[in-house]
Amino acid sequence: MFNTIGIIGKSHHAGASESVAMLIDYLTTKGCRVLLDERMAVDALPDSIQRTSLVDIGKSADLAIVVGGDGNMLGAARVLAKFDISVVGINRGNLGFLTDIAPDHISESLDAIFAGDYIVEERFLLEIEVYREGQIHSSNSAMNEAILHHSNVANMIEYEVHIDNQFVFSQRADGLIVSTPTGSTAYSLSGGGPIVTPQLSALTLVPMFPHTLSSRPLLVDANSSLKLIAKTRNQDESQVSCDGHVVLSVQSGDEVKIRKAPHTLSLVHPPTYDYYRVLRNKLGWGSKLY
Amino acid sequence: MFNTIGIIGKSHHAGASESVAMLIDYLTTKGCRVLLDERMAVDALPDSIQRTSLVDIGKSADLAIVVGGDGNMLGAARVLAKFDISVVGINRGNLGFLTDIAPDHISESLDAIFAGDYIVEERFLLEIEVYREGQIHSSNSAMNEAILHHSNVANMIEYEVHIDNQFVFSQRADGLIVSTPTGSTAYSLSGGGPIVTPQLSALTLVPMFPHTLSSRPLLVDANSSLKLIAKTRNQDESQVSCDGHVVLSVQSGDEVKIRKAPHTLSLVHPPTYDYYRVLRNKLGWGSKLY
Amino acid sequence: MFNTIGIIGKSHHAGASESVAMLIDYLTTKGCRVLLDERMAVDALPDSIQRTSLVDIGKSADLAIVVGGDGNMLGAARVLAKFDISVVGINRGNLGFLTDIAPDHISESLDAIFAGDYIVEERFLLEIEVYREGQIHSSNSAMNEAILHHSNVANMIEYEVHIDNQFVFSQRADGLIVSTPTGSTAYSLSGGGPIVTPQLSALTLVPMFPHTLSSRPLLVDANSSLKLIAKTRNQDESQVSCDGHVVLSVQSGDEVKIRKAPHTLSLVHPPTYDYYRVLRNKLGWGSKLY
Amino acid sequence: MFNTIGIIGKSHHAGASESVAMLIDYLTTKGCRVLLDERMAVDALPDSIQRTSLVDIGKSADLAIVVGGDGNMLGAARVLAKFDISVVGINRGNLGFLTDIAPDHISESLDAIFAGDYIVEERFLLEIEVYREGQIHSSNSAMNEAILHHSNVANMIEYEVHIDNQFVFSQRADGLIVSTPTGSTAYSLSGGGPIVTPQLSALTLVPMFPHTLSSRPLLVDANSSLKLIAKTRNQDESQVSCDGHVVLSVQSGDEVKIRKAPHTLSLVHPPTYDYYRVLRNKLGWGSKLY
Repeated sequence: MFNTIGIIGKSHHAGASESVAMLIDYLTTKGCRVLLDERMAVDALPDSIQRTSLVDIGKSADLAIVVGGDGNMLGAARVLAKFDISVVGINRGNLGFLTDIAPDHISESLDAIFAGDYIVEERFLLEIEVYREGQIHSSNSAMNEAILHHSNVANMIEYEVHIDNQFVFSQRADGLIVSTPTGSTAYSLSGGGPIVTPQLSALTLVPMFPHTLSSRPLLVDANSSLKLIAKTRNQDESQVSCDGHVVLSVQSGDEVKIRKAPHTLSLVHPPTYDYYRVLRNKLGWGSKLY
Repeated sequence: MFNTIGIIGKSHHAGASESVAMLIDYLTTKGCRVLLDERMAVDALPDSIQRTSLVDIGKSADLAIVVGGDGNMLGAARVLAKFDISVVGINRGNLGFLTDIAPDHISESLDAIFAGDYIVEERFLLEIEVYREGQIHSSNSAMNEAILHHSNVANMIEYEVHIDNQFVFSQRADGLIVSTPTGSTAYSLSGGGPIVTPQLSALTLVPMFPHTLSSRPLLVDANSSLKLIAKTRNQDESQVSCDGHVVLSVQSGDEVKIRKAPHTLSLVHPPTYDYYRVLRNKLGWGSKLY
Repeated sequence: MFNTIGIIGKSHHAGASESVAMLIDYLTTKGCRVLLDERMAVDALPDSIQRTSLVDIGKSADLAIVVGGDGNMLGAARVLAKFDISVVGINRGNLGFLTDIAPDHISESLDAIFAGDYIVEERFLLEIEVYREGQIHSSNSAMNEAILHHSNVANMIEYEVHIDNQFVFSQRADGLIVSTPTGSTAYSLSGGGPIVTPQLSALTLVPMFPHTLSSRPLLVDANSSLKLIAKTRNQDESQVSCDGHVVLSVQSGDEVKIRKAPHTLSLVHPPTYDYYRVLRNKLGWGSKLY
Repeated sequence: MFNTIGIIGKSHHAGASESVAMLIDYLTTKGCRVLLDERMAVDALPDSIQRTSLVDIGKSADLAIVVGGDGNMLGAARVLAKFDISVVGINRGNLGFLTDIAPDHISESLDAIFAGDYIVEERFLLEIEVYREGQIHSSNSAMNEAILHHSNVANMIEYEVHIDNQFVFSQRADGLIVSTPTGSTAYSLSGGGPIVTPQLSALTLVPMFPHTLSSRPLLVDANSSLKLIAKTRNQDESQVSCDGHVVLSVQSGDEVKIRKAPHTLSLVHPPTYDYYRVLRNKLGWGSKLY
């Protein structure tokens, strides 16, 4: 089932390197063809291991194993989602909503997965396009969220929100977060957004420091087409930040179109995966206050 | 298309009575058969008008016209949703997310609707069942929300939440709100829940005064089966309150099952209806803070 | 310094009884006169121990030791604050913002306290008076909070808030919490109120499920005079609940006056007491989200 | 009482210029000596009017009249608070918590004020000092708030909060707002902070997008000494932003000390001033939700 396996790992991280070494050992023993993300520095690589780009992993591999934190998964996902590949995460980072296999459960988790005993979740991504004077100017994708904000810290922007070509509201605020269910436990949650289970096909709009008391998070169908029009004074620019990494520049009057990407990420979990248990662990649910 | 019309109205309310009289006039002129909710006191009723129960309206009418506030619509909807009938609302109450025709636009709105020029929204309801020792003990439905809480004011309960037979979390709180998208602009919003557009098939769970800081609103697919297990001390009882009206009693250990009702309410709007404009008006969106 | 010591304990609680027995032993060895709250059931009491009422403890003792949870401290505090007595808490309950000595640190903590090595915090209480037709009708005090709400669950009230005889706002809501800094980590916190350090002489007003989006917690000087006027429909009644225990009934039109009580509670802590460490422990501060 | 009057106005704003012209006329008729902020462009100035710096106005004038929005008042206040001068605001801007005289009430308001019939509020400011390796590196003051944040948009910082040399908490977040009561209706309110009446001597700490669910606004006595220690990775810098205008740069490990400034701003209001009425107007209190 999974014959060609790509490995993508956090660079310059002792723990990640250790897990990658272990994975190489495990996978070559199993007779898999292994492709290693060329950005990873690894000593003494077996000859059978091929170093390649993330895009080539997407094209050639059946399964990609991401070793690191959720940030590493987000970076890989934005590229891999376009290809017909499954992705699984080994947690070597801070939290791990997406990278849910503990380093010391690699063997047993992969044993199960190679035996066909696993859970697949299709997680959707956002496609973000910036239009300037009617022409597409730049684009990218996001797995967690797209954030429209001023390009300087602590500066307000003004924007209009349109959904399926209907005007929804205009607002002055520091910015606006548009989050997927996957992103609902990340930045959106810090901003007061609700937790949205991955099964729900919804986008969450969370205003950042809105200049009105009547603003609230808004949830819309993920198949909606969002259009944001940012207005800034003078020569000021805004930005759309995708998963906190890629940044698209936005001029006053540009249209930012956000919609569900056509492809989803096939996220593979070991059979013991339980979304709500992860939530309880990560968010500290269960601890009583008084 | 709409031949038999039921009229359901707020009782003892001068404005509502005036609109009902106007409706009777309009509909009889149009040659419709009119059924009037028997609970309404009306003077000098034309002979052609039949007084009947809400259930009979549901069985016999093609269209029900509810005159009053959203509370009147909720009461009617819980009964009418089970039948093959469309419902439209004339606003004679406080707000009016559901009853969106202004009294002085009755003629033009109904002209359009009778001409086939209208918008239909299918709004789903909740079905709530209380199980005691494995047997169903009571049940009801709700269009806005079901609220599990202690039967005395300002008393805490403890409950477990299960979704599709998976344990999600346990909590000590004043209660838990389970809201439909329709209810997301009502009590759930006061409790910190997000606004959910009617198109989204989602349930919102909002804890009331939770005894932990890590609690947040949670959105799940509306096709999920929820199970709440309430625990109270001694002989204390809890309640499930449906749309703030019907109350089901819940003993410690009872299981409260909540799921999407099989039938939806067909809510008819005049062609000028715009959900987001209603939101903007009702919630005061647009007023700037500083 | 502390010669006559009152002991007030949680009833029918094995752990509390154990700590009380240990305290009696400790205090008699030290040559103190011991007064035991008459509501506590204790086997085999030494002859030297006198059983007495809480009021008599307030009148005669120099120090009261409360064994239990914060709820036990609140109950004792409402009575003892009127007397010239210091109070210290042994934690045998759930949390313990007020009862901060762990049962296995009783000896060392009391050794320090008897040696004069301790911290005193003066915590203020609220005095609540209900006026009907200009006459005082009932009154009580609260250490955490006074809550004005409907006497039936999930029913809205309407009320006006006046501060120092200035009208502040009117609101429809489930109720209003008026909290001391001590209460800011209790019910008020569940309702979205801020944390207020005990040194700050402030009252926090937190609306419960307000029917408007523009409502926010409001902090005013604790030396202000608050006046709440509740309005309910028909024959409905409201209540003022004091620390979640004592309940005063409020009729439509009654005036509820709330002000700082003239006496404070002298809360004694062992010398290692650190308010912010308690906060960090109780509220789980420090746990990272992502 | 008020003999020498300084006028400070919004530049290049027709309405403000009109009010300034009217003020000059009013004040010269009254026989006052008038000092005009040199940054204001005014045509055809009477010979008796002296153009001078803001600092000279602070030194020489008894009363400063600020014409503009709250932003203009904040800028003037940071300078004028150090001098023995009263300040009054004519509203020619967006909101106006501080500039509360409407342009068409200038004469009657000033008549009252010159007749000694006015209300003075002492509003305190913050003094912010950045220490690098034990030495003071930069400093400024703020009337609304000081904000510690990363110098790039949407980047997280880590910081420790110490109050009166006690460690309070550490946190990863976008930043931290430290607000005066005056600032409690500005940026702090957008970030979820409570409204704090001007009489209350309190500082509000509001974390911005904290990476934990257990974070809440914290209120401490305004006489406390705050110390924030920011930690950023690599060569990244943070900033302290004062009233959204002045920016102090902060390197990883720098100590940011924040405390009440020694001088207060004497804010003069016409006798009809009512803080709560301003609140109700500005925040839209009173509008009902459902």
